[in-house]
Amino acid sequence: MANQTKPIIHGYFRSSCSWRVRIAFALKGIEFDQVPVNLIKDGGQQFTEQYKGLNPMQQVPAVQIDGITLSQSLAVIQYIEKTRTGHRLLPADPKKRAQVRMISDLIASGIQPVQNLYVLQKIGAEKVQWAHHFIQRGFEALEPILKETAGKYCVEDEISMADICLVPQVYNAERFKVDVDQFPTIKRLNQTLLKVDAFKETHPSCQLDTPAEICT
Amino acid sequence: MANQTKPIIHGYFRSSCSWRVRIAFALKGIEFDQVPVNLIKDGGQQFTEQYKGLNPMQQVPAVQIDGITLSQSLAVIQYIEKTRTGHRLLPADPKKRAQVRMISDLIASGIQPVQNLYVLQKIGAEKVQWAHHFIQRGFEALEPILKETAGKYCVEDEISMADICLVPQVYNAERFKVDVDQFPTIKRLNQTLLKVDAFKETHPSCQLDTPAEICT
Repeated sequence: MANQTKPIIHGYFRSSCSWRVRIAFALKGIEFDQVPVNLIKDGGQQFTEQYKGLNPMQQVPAVQIDGITLSQSLAVIQYIEKTRTGHRLLPADPKKRAQVRMISDLIASGIQPVQNLYVLQKIGAEKVQWAHHFIQRGFEALEPILKETAGKYCVEDEISMADICLVPQVYNAERFKVDVDQFPTIKRLNQTLLKVDAFKETHPSCQLDTPAEICT
Repeated sequence: MANQTKPIIHGYFRSSCSWRVRIAFALKGIEFDQVPVNLIKDGGQQFTEQYKGLNPMQQVPAVQIDGITLSQSLAVIQYIEKTRTGHRLLPADPKKRAQVRMISDLIASGIQPVQNLYVLQKIGAEKVQWAHHFIQRGFEALEPILKETAGKYCVEDEISMADICLVPQVYNAERFKVDVDQFPTIKRLNQTLLKVDAFKETHPSCQLDTPAEICT
């Protein structure tokens, strides 16, 4: 059976979209193999013809699972939600489910793409200010939404896809010097989630392709 | 019952994300009211305090439905898929469903956000070249994927959320002078879909807020 072959995540330790997928697999308790794709080395291994065959967008992650190859992290997460048991990543209630998707997409469509590596490379010298501006703007919108929806986690008291999107985006925010203290709900949720095993074990600081000098 | 109140789409005739939602409602046969939010006039009506209460991201659309307010077009589309009967917007088969989401997200996260109005306003004078670059790059990735997945529509022979994302993105591509003839699958799908009532009736050229001079 296809499911007996371990899924392969082609990703990069620091890519927030790769991290999302690692968290989801960890929450579900799905074993996976990883193939590192170094986005910087040799001008970017995502630009090789071989990788382009896996993901024509030349971005990470790409996931080989059940005989198909999927890119786009939220498509991967919702595929494993549909096909695997284990921790539920989307609530059953349609309104809460819609809130989880709204928060996930606010991050995955509204913030992350604008501060993605391929955009920053096009921006050039001003890239830190650019990323800072759009993450700051996104967090100013996200904070009041989370203030309404959050319990212990982004939407009430169950860890969901929204949390999977939030933590890697806060990691990016810190890289680009956004002061997360301005956003008490985001800050609290992030601190709580970082203590959860599935988030800790998949953290960019301790992946197999994390450079030794920043490995913790 | 909440469902007896018509949903309200706060949107803009030319916004591709607003158009996605209009198409989805039309495919489902759901009647809706529209409140135009002019993204240009008075410096942008999305920036008013009143609108910010509906969508803190200060973007369109925002949809009031069943007593909640949702932003993020794909969250809205998947909410009506979950709560309404009518044309199915996502296939039942998990792998095809994942392909629909992958294509939808490639557009909704990979292309559209980078050529969104608020990004282009930050780019300034070079905005047409910027938008052209990222749509061209996105379509170069989308074309080989659609070549694999498409039948009559983006994923085999049923109109899905992927088609709902594709047509408004092609509309944007044409605005930014991308030569769609380079992408035969995208071109064919777009031409086929534009003949479908739900796409025709919701087209930016014939909305209640379409300026008279460009109304067809």
